[in-house]
Amino acid sequence: MRPTWKAINSNLSDALPISWRNMVKEWLREDIPSMDYGGFVVGEKQESAILFGKSRGILAGVPFFNEVFEQLECRVEWFLEEGEDIHPITKVAVVYGTAKNLLLGERVALNILSRCSGIATKSKRMGEKLKQLGYHGILAGTRKTTPGFRLVEKYGMMIGGADPHRFDLSSMIMLKDNHIWSKGSITKAVEAARLIGGFSLKIEVEVHSEEEADEAILSGADIIMLDNFHNNDMKIVAQNLKKKWKNKANFLLECSGGITEENIHEFICNDLDILSTSSIHQSTKHVEFSLKIDKK
Amino acid sequence: MRPTWKAINSNLSDALPISWRNMVKEWLREDIPSMDYGGFVVGEKQESAILFGKSRGILAGVPFFNEVFEQLECRVEWFLEEGEDIHPITKVAVVYGTAKNLLLGERVALNILSRCSGIATKSKRMGEKLKQLGYHGILAGTRKTTPGFRLVEKYGMMIGGADPHRFDLSSMIMLKDNHIWSKGSITKAVEAARLIGGFSLKIEVEVHSEEEADEAILSGADIIMLDNFHNNDMKIVAQNLKKKWKNKANFLLECSGGITEENIHEFICNDLDILSTSSIHQSTKHVEFSLKIDKK
Amino acid sequence: MRPTWKAINSNLSDALPISWRNMVKEWLREDIPSMDYGGFVVGEKQESAILFGKSRGILAGVPFFNEVFEQLECRVEWFLEEGEDIHPITKVAVVYGTAKNLLLGERVALNILSRCSGIATKSKRMGEKLKQLGYHGILAGTRKTTPGFRLVEKYGMMIGGADPHRFDLSSMIMLKDNHIWSKGSITKAVEAARLIGGFSLKIEVEVHSEEEADEAILSGADIIMLDNFHNNDMKIVAQNLKKKWKNKANFLLECSGGITEENIHEFICNDLDILSTSSIHQSTKHVEFSLKIDKK
Amino acid sequence: MRPTWKAINSNLSDALPISWRNMVKEWLREDIPSMDYGGFVVGEKQESAILFGKSRGILAGVPFFNEVFEQLECRVEWFLEEGEDIHPITKVAVVYGTAKNLLLGERVALNILSRCSGIATKSKRMGEKLKQLGYHGILAGTRKTTPGFRLVEKYGMMIGGADPHRFDLSSMIMLKDNHIWSKGSITKAVEAARLIGGFSLKIEVEVHSEEEADEAILSGADIIMLDNFHNNDMKIVAQNLKKKWKNKANFLLECSGGITEENIHEFICNDLDILSTSSIHQSTKHVEFSLKIDKK
Amino acid sequence: MRPTWKAINSNLSDALPISWRNMVKEWLREDIPSMDYGGFVVGEKQESAILFGKSRGILAGVPFFNEVFEQLECRVEWFLEEGEDIHPITKVAVVYGTAKNLLLGERVALNILSRCSGIATKSKRMGEKLKQLGYHGILAGTRKTTPGFRLVEKYGMMIGGADPHRFDLSSMIMLKDNHIWSKGSITKAVEAARLIGGFSLKIEVEVHSEEEADEAILSGADIIMLDNFHNNDMKIVAQNLKKKWKNKANFLLECSGGITEENIHEFICNDLDILSTSSIHQSTKHVEFSLKIDKK
Amino acid sequence: MRPTWKAINSNLSDALPISWRNMVKEWLREDIPSMDYGGFVVGEKQESAILFGKSRGILAGVPFFNEVFEQLECRVEWFLEEGEDIHPITKVAVVYGTAKNLLLGERVALNILSRCSGIATKSKRMGEKLKQLGYHGILAGTRKTTPGFRLVEKYGMMIGGADPHRFDLSSMIMLKDNHIWSKGSITKAVEAARLIGGFSLKIEVEVHSEEEADEAILSGADIIMLDNFHNNDMKIVAQNLKKKWKNKANFLLECSGGITEENIHEFICNDLDILSTSSIHQSTKHVEFSLKIDKK
Repeated sequence: MRPTWKAINSNLSDALPISWRNMVKEWLREDIPSMDYGGFVVGEKQESAILFGKSRGILAGVPFFNEVFEQLECRVEWFLEEGEDIHPITKVAVVYGTAKNLLLGERVALNILSRCSGIATKSKRMGEKLKQLGYHGILAGTRKTTPGFRLVEKYGMMIGGADPHRFDLSSMIMLKDNHIWSKGSITKAVEAARLIGGFSLKIEVEVHSEEEADEAILSGADIIMLDNFHNNDMKIVAQNLKKKWKNKANFLLECSGGITEENIHEFICNDLDILSTSSIHQSTKHVEFSLKIDKK
Repeated sequence: MRPTWKAINSNLSDALPISWRNMVKEWLREDIPSMDYGGFVVGEKQESAILFGKSRGILAGVPFFNEVFEQLECRVEWFLEEGEDIHPITKVAVVYGTAKNLLLGERVALNILSRCSGIATKSKRMGEKLKQLGYHGILAGTRKTTPGFRLVEKYGMMIGGADPHRFDLSSMIMLKDNHIWSKGSITKAVEAARLIGGFSLKIEVEVHSEEEADEAILSGADIIMLDNFHNNDMKIVAQNLKKKWKNKANFLLECSGGITEENIHEFICNDLDILSTSSIHQSTKHVEFSLKIDKK
Repeated sequence: MRPTWKAINSNLSDALPISWRNMVKEWLREDIPSMDYGGFVVGEKQESAILFGKSRGILAGVPFFNEVFEQLECRVEWFLEEGEDIHPITKVAVVYGTAKNLLLGERVALNILSRCSGIATKSKRMGEKLKQLGYHGILAGTRKTTPGFRLVEKYGMMIGGADPHRFDLSSMIMLKDNHIWSKGSITKAVEAARLIGGFSLKIEVEVHSEEEADEAILSGADIIMLDNFHNNDMKIVAQNLKKKWKNKANFLLECSGGITEENIHEFICNDLDILSTSSIHQSTKHVEFSLKIDKK
Repeated sequence: MRPTWKAINSNLSDALPISWRNMVKEWLREDIPSMDYGGFVVGEKQESAILFGKSRGILAGVPFFNEVFEQLECRVEWFLEEGEDIHPITKVAVVYGTAKNLLLGERVALNILSRCSGIATKSKRMGEKLKQLGYHGILAGTRKTTPGFRLVEKYGMMIGGADPHRFDLSSMIMLKDNHIWSKGSITKAVEAARLIGGFSLKIEVEVHSEEEADEAILSGADIIMLDNFHNNDMKIVAQNLKKKWKNKANFLLECSGGITEENIHEFICNDLDILSTSSIHQSTKHVEFSLKIDKK
Repeated sequence: MRPTWKAINSNLSDALPISWRNMVKEWLREDIPSMDYGGFVVGEKQESAILFGKSRGILAGVPFFNEVFEQLECRVEWFLEEGEDIHPITKVAVVYGTAKNLLLGERVALNILSRCSGIATKSKRMGEKLKQLGYHGILAGTRKTTPGFRLVEKYGMMIGGADPHRFDLSSMIMLKDNHIWSKGSITKAVEAARLIGGFSLKIEVEVHSEEEADEAILSGADIIMLDNFHNNDMKIVAQNLKKKWKNKANFLLECSGGITEENIHEFICNDLDILSTSSIHQSTKHVEFSLKIDKK
Repeated sequence: MRPTWKAINSNLSDALPISWRNMVKEWLREDIPSMDYGGFVVGEKQESAILFGKSRGILAGVPFFNEVFEQLECRVEWFLEEGEDIHPITKVAVVYGTAKNLLLGERVALNILSRCSGIATKSKRMGEKLKQLGYHGILAGTRKTTPGFRLVEKYGMMIGGADPHRFDLSSMIMLKDNHIWSKGSITKAVEAARLIGGFSLKIEVEVHSEEEADEAILSGADIIMLDNFHNNDMKIVAQNLKKKWKNKANFLLECSGGITEENIHEFICNDLDILSTSSIHQSTKHVEFSLKIDKK
C-alpha cells in the first residue's frame, strides 16, 4: 500500500523543478499586463491578511501560494499543513506585506489554491473509496490537465494520494493504436520504442484482446493497458494474464477509460495494478478561499 | 439586449492579442519537455484525424485548436462553427498532418477545447435562463480563472454570450474596502483612482449601503457594486438609486457574490445592470472530445 | 482641477506593473551584449558617485533609475524628490556601489532619467500655460511614444501632471474612420465595440461633424473626439453639444491634432474636456544629467 | 571622405543582427498587452493604406517598418528609398493587408519611422554643414540613446551618414578618469584593457592634457579623446600631437562634449579625426508620417 | 542485439522536442550579439556553398545543421545520410542562400556538426569494439555533457548506436549514497522514490556489495549499478545476482566508472546488461568540416 | 609580453556580461526539465560537499561554478584560486547547502568546471611551449567553440593566458575570400567594412600572397592574416612585410590554420604577431572533478 508523504518524512515541494518560479511570474504578469492602478490607490502601508478556507476539502498548493507572495516580498504563515482538512470557516494562513502587494497577489494566489485543493480533495476521496471497496492497487490521473497548469494539477493529485501517471510525452512511452499500426505489429512498435527510449524508460502498450496483451508482454512491455474491455471480460483477462505469466514476465496491468466516482465500484479487481481516471482532476469542484486584510 | 457575434458579422478571434501564439508554444513545450519518444515510433506518414464531440455542449476554442496544429504544420477543416451545438457523437473537424505531429498536438489541443467549450456551454445556459426569467441586463464572469489560461476562459465566456468583465488589474479600476480604507473615504479613493486612471478608464466602487452608493455616485464612479446585501434589500436599494439619480448621474449597478445556476432566480431585478458570477467558468463541466486517426 | 500626487499622498511608482523590471534587465543587456571590458579595468572597489542635474527641468524617472542600480547591487540616496525642480547644477542623488557596477549602469540610468525628465518638464510647462490661459480641462498625451519605452514616457507625462491617455490598444476602445466604415455606421461600430469591450471599457469615437457627434452620443460613446474642425467651428460645436445633451447623456469632448506649445492658446475652450497632444512627449528636449565618481 | 551606402552598392539592413525581429515583436506586444478590441471591430477585410510623409526630412527605418508589417502578414511597397528626401506631402509607401492588421501595426510602425527619420535627417544636416565648413573628418554619435531602441537610433545615424561610434560596452574599450584612477596610470589602464580586450579590440583613452595624450599614445591607445579643452587649446594640442608622433605612432584624435549645430563651427580642425555629439540623435525633431487606409 | 535506425525504418530526428529550434536561435544570437558587419560587406547575392568532410568519422547532426540554415532562409541538399562514413575529403552537402546568410550560419552550423559527428564516431567505434569482444549488452553514455548542448550530444551518441542513458534528473530516478543515507536504508529510499515517481518511472540503485544489491532488488529497483567493484569481483557478483534472482525478480545490471576505449576489454561480462561511460562523448575528437562558397 | 591577471591585480570575472546568469539558469533547467525526483528523496537537510580535483590541470570556471550554487542558495568556499594548479587528488572547494540543492547543482557545475579547466590547461601548456621556443607574440583561440557555451570556453582560454580572439561576428570585422570577391577587391571590401564598422572597430583581412597583403595594408587593414602559406614562405613574407612597411603603416600579422601542440614549433617566427589555433579549446582533454557529500 502506498505510504503517505508524512510517513516517509518527505515534502512533495522538494520535487518541484527549477523553472516553476517563472510560471508564477507569468501568472502575475497575466493579471497586471500594464499598470497596477489599484496598487497606486492603496499604497505601501504594511498590512496582514487572513486566508480563510470557506468550503470543505483538503489544503493543497502551499508552495505555489508561498511563491506568489515571495515574489511580491510578502511573508506567509500557515496554520494548516499541506494535505490537512479544511473545516470551513477556518483560518488557514496569514500573509504579511504592503497593501499594494497583498492585493496584487491575492487573486492569482487564490486561483491556484482553490484549483489545486479541489483536485487534491477529489483525489483523496476517490482513493479512500477504493480502499473501502477493497482495492489494493494504484489510483492514477491522466494528461488531461489544463494547458500551462499541469504542474499544479499533478501536484494536487499527489497531495491527494494519487499517482500522477506519466508527466508528459517525454516520460514513459505509451504505445497506442497509431504507434502499432505505423510499425506493423506490437512487437515492432515495442522494438522501436526500446531503441529510442533506451534501457531507462518504461514502455506501456494499449491492447484490445488477451492475444495482444500476450504479444506486448512477450515483446518486453513494462505496462499493459486494457482498453475498451467490458468490465467482466477485463477482470477475466487480467486474471488470466497474471496467472499465465507468473514468474515468466514482469508487467503491470492498467485499466483506463470512463472511470468516475459513481461507477468505480465496477472496476474493482486486484489483478489490475492501476486504475487511471481524469475524473480526479478534470472539472473537479474547487475549494473556496478568501483573503481578507485584517483591520485591527 | 446583447447582440451575438454573428448578428454583427464579426469574429471574436479578431480580438486575440499578438502574443497568444507564444502561449500555445509553451503549452506544447509543457507536454514535450525533452524528447518526443512516441513521435519517433509513428514517424512522418501523412494521416488525417477526426475530431469527435462526445458530450453535449457548444463548441468554443477554434482559434486555439487551430493554432496548436498550425504550429505543428497540420491543417484543420471544421464541420461546425464556433458557438454551434454539439450533438454527440458528432464529427466536429478533421486534421491533416504527419502521424507524429497529430499525436504530438492531440492532448494539448483537446485539453484546450474541452475546457473552453465547457465554459461557453455553461455561460450560454446561464444567459438563456436569465432571459427566460425576464432579466434584460448583463451576465458577466470574474477574474477567478485558471492562472495562465485566462485568455481561453474569458474567450469561452464571450462565445457563450457572457460579458468577460474586466480582464485584469490593468483594466477598469475596482475599489474595494481596502482601497477605500487606505484613502480614508470613497470620495478620496475615487479621486486617487481618477488621477492614476485618467479620463480613459472606468472606475467601479464596491459599497455596502445606500449611503455609500450615493457617495460613490457623487464622486463620479462609473459602476457601483452592491456587495453583501440581502436579496430583497439589494433590489430596493437598486431601485432607489436608479430613481434618485435619474438624469443626474450616469452609472451602472452590479451585483456579485454567490450567484449560481441554482439560485440565480433570486437575483432577478432589472435595476441591476450586471450580474457577475464565477460559476460560469470555475469548476464547470468540460465537453468531451476525442481525436482519432482515420484508418481508411 | 487635477490634484497632484502629493496632494493625495500617493506614489506613482506604486502603479508600475510587475514586469517592468525585466525591461531594465534588457536595457542593461543592450549596453553589454557580450563582455564588460571596462568593468574588468576598474574592478570592484567600493565607490560613491554623484548624480548632477545640469539643465533646467523637473526630475522624473526615479524608480527606473533606482532599479538599474538595484539590479547592479548599488544603492541610491536622493536629495530631490520625483517631480521637484532641478536648478543646475544641483546634486540630485548619490549612488553607492563597486566601480565596475557604477560605470556599468551609468549610461543606461542617465539615458532613462534625461528622457523621462524632459517629458515631465514639457508636460508640466504646457499644463501651467493652460491654467494661465484659463483652461480647466485635462491635458493629455498620445500613443506616439518610443517603441519599448512607453512606460517611462507615460510615467513622465504623469509626473508632469498630464493625463497619459489610453496606454495601448487593449485599453479604451477608440473608433476612427476605418472602424466606422467597416461596420457601416457609427451606431453599428459602437455596438460592436460594446459587444467586445463589455461594460467595463470606455468607447471613444472620432467625429467630423456635429451630426456624427450626435449619432455617437446617442449610441452610447463615452468620449467624442472632434477631429479636423477649424478652431472656431470646433468651439461652436463643442458648446452646442454640451448644451443640447445636458442631463440627457454623459460624455466627454476631446480635441486632438496639431496642438503645440506655440498654438495652444487657440484651442482654449472649457466645453472641451480634454486637449491631447504628442508635443508633450515626442521630440521634447531632454534634461541633462551626469554621474561622477566622487574622488575624496 | 566617407562614401555613401549607394556608392559602395550595399544595404545597411544587411548588417541588422539576427535578434532584432524579436524587438519588433515586443514593441507590438507593448501596444496590445491583452485584447485587440479595435481589431475585432474592423475585422479582416483586405485593404491598402498609404504612408504619407508630412514634414521635411530624409526617410530612415525601412527595414523596421517592413518587419512590423511582415509580422502582421501585410506587404509594403515603397515609392522612396531609404535615405531619400521627403518633400511633404509625399506618398512614401503603400501597405496591403487586413484592416485589423493595418491598424494594429500602424502606431508602432509610425513611431519607429518618425524617430529614425528624425535622427537620420539631423545627422545628415550636421554632416553637410561640416563639409561646408571644410571639415574632412568623421561626425559620430554617442551611446546617449533611448534604452531598448539603440539599434534603430544608431541605424538612423548611419543612414544620415554619421559614424555610430561604439555600439555598447562590449565594443571598443573606452578608458576614462575612473578606469585610469583605479589602475594608477594611463599606462597601467591601457595594459589592463589590452589584456582583457586582446589584439582584436581598439582602445580609446580620454585625456585632459598633452602630457596625458603622450602617455596614452605611448602605451598603445588607438584613439585619444581630448576632453574639456578650450577650443583653441584643443586645436593646438591636436596639431602638436599629430606632428610630434608622425610616423612614430598610429592614433586617431576625437573631440567630444557639448558640440551642437549652433556651435559646431568652433570645433573645425582637421587634426581632429572625429567630432562626436549626441545632438544628432538625442532630442532631435521627428519626421511626421501618417498611414491612411485607401477608400477607393 | 540493438537494431539500427534504418533497420526499423525510423528517423531519430522525429524524436527531437518542440523547443529545440529556440536553442538554434540562441546559438545564432551568441555569434551575432549586435551587428553583423561581415553580412553588410558581402550582401545578398545568391550563392551555393559546399560542405566538405575533412577528417574520418561518421556524419551526425543533420537536423541541427538544417535548422541553422532554415532559420536563415537557406536550403541544404545532402549527399550523405546521417550516420554514414565520411572519407575525407568528401562533399557532404551543398547549401543554397544569400552570401550574407551562408556566412552568418557557417560557424554555428560547423561547430554543431563537428562536435556531434565526433561523439557519434567515438560511440560507434566503442560499440563495434564491444561486439568484437563478444559483448551482447548495451553501451551507454552519461549526463557528463556540455551544459546547454546535451540534446546534440545525446543525439550524437544515439546516431553512433549507443544508449543515451537517462536524459536528465526528471527521467529515471537514480539513487546514490546520499539518497540512501538520507532515508536510512536502500529499502526506504526506493520506497520514497516509488512514491514520487509513481509506477511510470524506473528506479536505479547504486550498490557497493552483493548484500546491498540484494536489498535493492528486493525493494523493487529496476536497475542495479555496481559501483567501485574490482573487475573480477564485479563479474562474480554479477553472475551471482543473475543466478540467485532468476525468475524471482526482474532487474538490469549496470557497470560504470572509468571505462575507456583502452581498458574496456577488462569489463566484458554478459551478466552485465549495461556498460556506461562518458568517454564516448566527453573530450572526444571532433570531425573536421568546412563550408566553402562555390566560385563557378 | 602578456602580463597575467594577478600581475595587474584584476579579476577576469569582472568582465562577465550582465546576461550570463540566465545561461546558468537555462543549464540547470536542461537537467531538470520537469520534476526533480531525486531532490524529493534526499530532502532539505543541510550538508557540505567537497569538490575534489582528480586529474592534472589548472582550475578555471570559478564564477560559473559559484553561480550554479548561488542560484540554488548554496555557498562555496574555495581552497584554490582561479588559474592555480590542481595536483590530484586535491580538495579544491567545499559547498554548503541542502542535500537536495547540492545534488541538483552537482552535475551542471562539474560539467562546466571540467570543460573550462581543460581548455585553460591546454591554453596554458601551449603558451608555455611557445615561450620555451622563443616566441614573443600572442597565442589566440578561434570561434570554433561549442554553441551556447562560448563564454565559458573563451573565459577558459583567457585564464590559460591565451587571447580569446574576436568574440563573435559583432566584434572585429574579418574579411575573407567571399567578402573580397563580393566587393571586387580588397580595397573595396575594406572600404565597405570601414563604412559599416566606423572608426571604432578593427578590420582584419585574410590574404594569400604578399601582393594581397600589400593591398590590404594600403587600404588600412589593422590585421593581416596569412592564409595557406607554406611555413617557410610565410616566414619570408612576414619578414618582408614588416620591413617594407616599417614606419609607414601600422598592422599586425596573424597566422592561422592547422596549428597544433605537435607542429607548433614549425610556426615560430617573431614577425608573426599572432598564432591562432582552435586546438587550445576544441576536443581538449577535460579535467576531472568530483563533488562528494561529506559524511561526518
